[in-house]
Amino acid sequence: MTVLADLRSDTLTRPTPAMRAAIVDAAVGDDVYAEDPTVQELERRVADLLGHEAALFMPTGSMANQVGLRLHAGPGQEVITDSLAHVLRAELGAAAAYSGITTRSWVAPRGRLDVGAALAMMVPDGGLYQVSTACVVVENTHNFGGGTVQPIADLRRLREETSRAGVGVHLDGARLWNASVASGVALADYGACADTVSVCLSKGLGAPVGSLLAASAERVREARVLRKRMGGGMRQVGLLAAAGLHALEHHVDRLAEDHARTRRVAQAVGTAYPAVVDPEHVETNILVLDVSAAGWVAADLVAAAGERGVLGYPTDARHARFVWHLDVDDEMTEHAGAVLLDLLARGPGA
Amino acid sequence: MTVLADLRSDTLTRPTPAMRAAIVDAAVGDDVYAEDPTVQELERRVADLLGHEAALFMPTGSMANQVGLRLHAGPGQEVITDSLAHVLRAELGAAAAYSGITTRSWVAPRGRLDVGAALAMMVPDGGLYQVSTACVVVENTHNFGGGTVQPIADLRRLREETSRAGVGVHLDGARLWNASVASGVALADYGACADTVSVCLSKGLGAPVGSLLAASAERVREARVLRKRMGGGMRQVGLLAAAGLHALEHHVDRLAEDHARTRRVAQAVGTAYPAVVDPEHVETNILVLDVSAAGWVAADLVAAAGERGVLGYPTDARHARFVWHLDVDDEMTEHAGAVLLDLLARGPGA
Amino acid sequence: MTVLADLRSDTLTRPTPAMRAAIVDAAVGDDVYAEDPTVQELERRVADLLGHEAALFMPTGSMANQVGLRLHAGPGQEVITDSLAHVLRAELGAAAAYSGITTRSWVAPRGRLDVGAALAMMVPDGGLYQVSTACVVVENTHNFGGGTVQPIADLRRLREETSRAGVGVHLDGARLWNASVASGVALADYGACADTVSVCLSKGLGAPVGSLLAASAERVREARVLRKRMGGGMRQVGLLAAAGLHALEHHVDRLAEDHARTRRVAQAVGTAYPAVVDPEHVETNILVLDVSAAGWVAADLVAAAGERGVLGYPTDARHARFVWHLDVDDEMTEHAGAVLLDLLARGPGA
Amino acid sequence: MTVLADLRSDTLTRPTPAMRAAIVDAAVGDDVYAEDPTVQELERRVADLLGHEAALFMPTGSMANQVGLRLHAGPGQEVITDSLAHVLRAELGAAAAYSGITTRSWVAPRGRLDVGAALAMMVPDGGLYQVSTACVVVENTHNFGGGTVQPIADLRRLREETSRAGVGVHLDGARLWNASVASGVALADYGACADTVSVCLSKGLGAPVGSLLAASAERVREARVLRKRMGGGMRQVGLLAAAGLHALEHHVDRLAEDHARTRRVAQAVGTAYPAVVDPEHVETNILVLDVSAAGWVAADLVAAAGERGVLGYPTDARHARFVWHLDVDDEMTEHAGAVLLDLLARGPGA
Repeated sequence: MTVLADLRSDTLTRPTPAMRAAIVDAAVGDDVYAEDPTVQELERRVADLLGHEAALFMPTGSMANQVGLRLHAGPGQEVITDSLAHVLRAELGAAAAYSGITTRSWVAPRGRLDVGAALAMMVPDGGLYQVSTACVVVENTHNFGGGTVQPIADLRRLREETSRAGVGVHLDGARLWNASVASGVALADYGACADTVSVCLSKGLGAPVGSLLAASAERVREARVLRKRMGGGMRQVGLLAAAGLHALEHHVDRLAEDHARTRRVAQAVGTAYPAVVDPEHVETNILVLDVSAAGWVAADLVAAAGERGVLGYPTDARHARFVWHLDVDDEMTEHAGAVLLDLLARGPGA
Repeated sequence: MTVLADLRSDTLTRPTPAMRAAIVDAAVGDDVYAEDPTVQELERRVADLLGHEAALFMPTGSMANQVGLRLHAGPGQEVITDSLAHVLRAELGAAAAYSGITTRSWVAPRGRLDVGAALAMMVPDGGLYQVSTACVVVENTHNFGGGTVQPIADLRRLREETSRAGVGVHLDGARLWNASVASGVALADYGACADTVSVCLSKGLGAPVGSLLAASAERVREARVLRKRMGGGMRQVGLLAAAGLHALEHHVDRLAEDHARTRRVAQAVGTAYPAVVDPEHVETNILVLDVSAAGWVAADLVAAAGERGVLGYPTDARHARFVWHLDVDDEMTEHAGAVLLDLLARGPGA
Repeated sequence: MTVLADLRSDTLTRPTPAMRAAIVDAAVGDDVYAEDPTVQELERRVADLLGHEAALFMPTGSMANQVGLRLHAGPGQEVITDSLAHVLRAELGAAAAYSGITTRSWVAPRGRLDVGAALAMMVPDGGLYQVSTACVVVENTHNFGGGTVQPIADLRRLREETSRAGVGVHLDGARLWNASVASGVALADYGACADTVSVCLSKGLGAPVGSLLAASAERVREARVLRKRMGGGMRQVGLLAAAGLHALEHHVDRLAEDHARTRRVAQAVGTAYPAVVDPEHVETNILVLDVSAAGWVAADLVAAAGERGVLGYPTDARHARFVWHLDVDDEMTEHAGAVLLDLLARGPGA
Repeated sequence: MTVLADLRSDTLTRPTPAMRAAIVDAAVGDDVYAEDPTVQELERRVADLLGHEAALFMPTGSMANQVGLRLHAGPGQEVITDSLAHVLRAELGAAAAYSGITTRSWVAPRGRLDVGAALAMMVPDGGLYQVSTACVVVENTHNFGGGTVQPIADLRRLREETSRAGVGVHLDGARLWNASVASGVALADYGACADTVSVCLSKGLGAPVGSLLAASAERVREARVLRKRMGGGMRQVGLLAAAGLHALEHHVDRLAEDHARTRRVAQAVGTAYPAVVDPEHVETNILVLDVSAAGWVAADLVAAAGERGVLGYPTDARHARFVWHLDVDDEMTEHAGAVLLDLLARGPGA
């Protein structure tokens, strides 16, 4: 089998020649000692984009999120979010296992922020013997929700109400670039709605490795220690930071192309099989199909597509996910759409 | 102010003279060495009542629950339950803080078990990189839900579906006696729906101290070690176990009286203020009033009632809780009902 | 086999008739709400004896120690002590497992406090990237060390030097009563050498259940919350506190009898087998024999003694421990001494 | 001030032009999906060098150690090592904070492995209520001990005795390359003495980022999950792995030069100030001076040297550490030696 379109994730992107050229010339230093000039430039740049005082380079988005949560809550304190949030589903329980943070969730269709549910669940001060809520997490765009963009009005309302209650907000912005490009809302406007923000360079932006956590200068100082404890204190990471700076320069606006391609396939599939996907719900670069509506088990459809060179990921028994990114062009997109339509038409028995 | 009816909780009961007489004569031994005969008799008795192989005495219901959860899940594994469950709200985040267990929840009106929500949330095998669900928790009766009894048919369906998926069930049965008395369902029938069951002797049953965890013999052996690690390995606890045995003998059937008194006040209040409480929802010994429907902030109403000798507990800004128990008689009940009706009539401004 | 002298531990004592009489009449209340008058009297009494502002009743010495350590150190902070300390060896790793506290130790013959070793190991301020020492633990008397009494001069020097360095001291005083009776040093003088002190009522003092943690009023407030999280928030514990008050009144001075009996056997054995035990090192109620010096494996000697009605405990492959307490009289002591001498004379082959 | 010799750590090395050239051409893939060919080549290479079945790339040596320890021990289980081990002193308590691992230590001059102390402390099976030792850690070379090489005969004896007792061994081999070059013992011979081995590419070897954990194939599979939970699952890390492969090819043998330079300064200082350093104890690239023997506080001497362009690190109040590496040549070495001799001669008052 030849892979014709690898849509398993936007983490799969490989550095372009231009990005490699940026890497090879990077000035570096020991970043544990905060002496890497390229890292510092990247941290400054990202902090500015998000409108926060400071930012810290992290090996992964998971570590950026986990350190972020730990800045809000310690053992026995509570973080709440929707039940499909990446921090609850895809970081292997790290918040509980490593930070002792207790979590509750509400169910949110497509991962769309439900401000009312968040506020109703929040317990700002539980007194001596009940758990207090330290932080609400919002994921934007929402991965398992299908790339959902969170409306800025809702984020602002959440920020206002949580601030009044003395509760923090963490924004899991692994794909905040996609949200901004899709919605036209500035990154800093999103950033203003949270105390701590994580962003990833290694997803749609195409850098090989790296995420950042933005926050106040004081919190970032504390995050440096937590990063070290988690084993994320790397040395001459300016090489990776250079790739990140290149990505910020050259790969943000082009996310619109990924979105357009994703939408094109969504419309083709949704027109033929409205129960499988509503194209109106495909807002960015992630296409989640409810393949059960066409009689498929997700893992089977993903396997069948894989045999025809189109790789996806079954997020659960019913849903198959396909993600567009830097290394997927129009031709691959056409092929992927054709394969998916054909498989849905044939059904699982074929 | 003289306290005329202390309805803050059913944990407040004091041992009766007959119970004290049972305590003073108890045979004892060192229970860390499993040599206390009265403890062993109580453990045997409770295991039999619940239809489990074995049971273990615990200092508190919180420890019984927390050790129970740890038997199902280790660091990074998941437990799911409703968002108002005692294990999530009122045990200070111990599952995360001490066992590294990650949790998600669904929202359940009155704490009523929503089997569909539980099954939809459950991820029996998350693979290498997603969290797997190890256990579903059901609380019966449901404390913050207002003493709600979980229907046995729902419990059986949950047991069947989770068993098929290889997921465990923990029953937080702190007030399982109340559920059984109210529903007529045998304790063993409830016990059959869970792998691990906690019950409390020191709530409606009126014993001074003590809870038990029932499970398989193998799990109870492991629980002994976990109890020791949590600092719950006590010595000559036969004194407390004797109180528990007395309570099982004499204080179970009489819970019906508590339920009747609670219902009586619920009907009086609900007739006058239907938005404050629906008497149909008051199934056992806990009365939760939505005092916001009468213009009150819960803490204010509780304070005002307290000034007139009726003590309650504001569970959140809108809800005040009143709990009936062994030390509350008809006269106190009449007084409490009268005070509540009067306060609701006057409103907060008075 | 009839048990003639159960010397496995001083935790085995059963409440006397007089103690039971004290229990049956105890005034009680809900201690989670801090409303149990007998508990409050006991807490006041113990705080005064130790010269601390406040004290808190605990179900076990392990919980008293673990909550005590948590008051000094959080996740990633360090506690140091000798390598045979109860908190490191016999509390199932709870400091690390539940509080994330990292520990180091030095080797101390007989558990005797080595102030120089403690101070040399202590790192009051490790900066951003090295571990900082938050607390030094001293156990007095030292259980696995063989009931060793810590010299007050050493304790005072440790207190002085740690205070200067901003490092805390926790005194594991499970058997502090024995230390005080043996040395003539007042409990308050020991108490003055530590920020937090645990004491047990259920060892030599003969109460069935209960320990206390003494500290500043502020720390005790925090300890209440930690106790609840660990599942140690019990209800009408005045019953147990009454036993503790009785023990403080009647069972402290008599510890001298236990010490005398222990010493008598130590002298008999040590005279015959100087390599097995040095009677000068047997200071309180614990006799540790190096039975390997007589060719025995500890577990074998303990088994052989058990067959003749004398129960002990092998602390490791070489050492057998025998502990005197309230329920061991002169006759039992004679018998135990005779059995031990006889077994050492015969050797393991017999 | 111009920095003339930066001897703070061998982590400071910058990638050479040849190494950068290797980086820029590296083939890459998504390493979370185990699809990065360069990472795989490096993992294969390191596993072979150490004689283990498999190896896993890690962002840092701290994460390699912490994941390694977690493979041996879970919450409440014990790891023992010497009191200056990097895993206890310089990884921010992560073993306790994240894995709940409890630790004890013995004091070892210069960090030299004391097999007798390790075996005497080890408790292979503590039974139900005492802590069991799961793993002994050996650091080779020993960082805070001053680059001490552990004798292979001792390592073999430890391996033999621990294997017999069912206790694991973790080798913290951050500078195992230095040990091998200094002693002539093959890496695989060291590797044979442990179940899990960590090695670093970013210290003396001069790669910018990266460490590996070598173990059995089964353990490495488990380590992949733990790495993800710790936030160490990076994507196109072939770029970093390429630097590592280059370093293995070109920078191992040259460590002898670092050792020679370190020894040269040690001899100059030790001849003049025998109490400050014994040159016989300077075995690799780390020079630890007991500057207190010359009347200095370590931080003051390091500051004074820094003003003259020679950077070091005070490991505690008495000891200053200077580390040789790829970016330090003969001229810098001469200068550093001269500055140190001069400062020791002048004393702190000057």
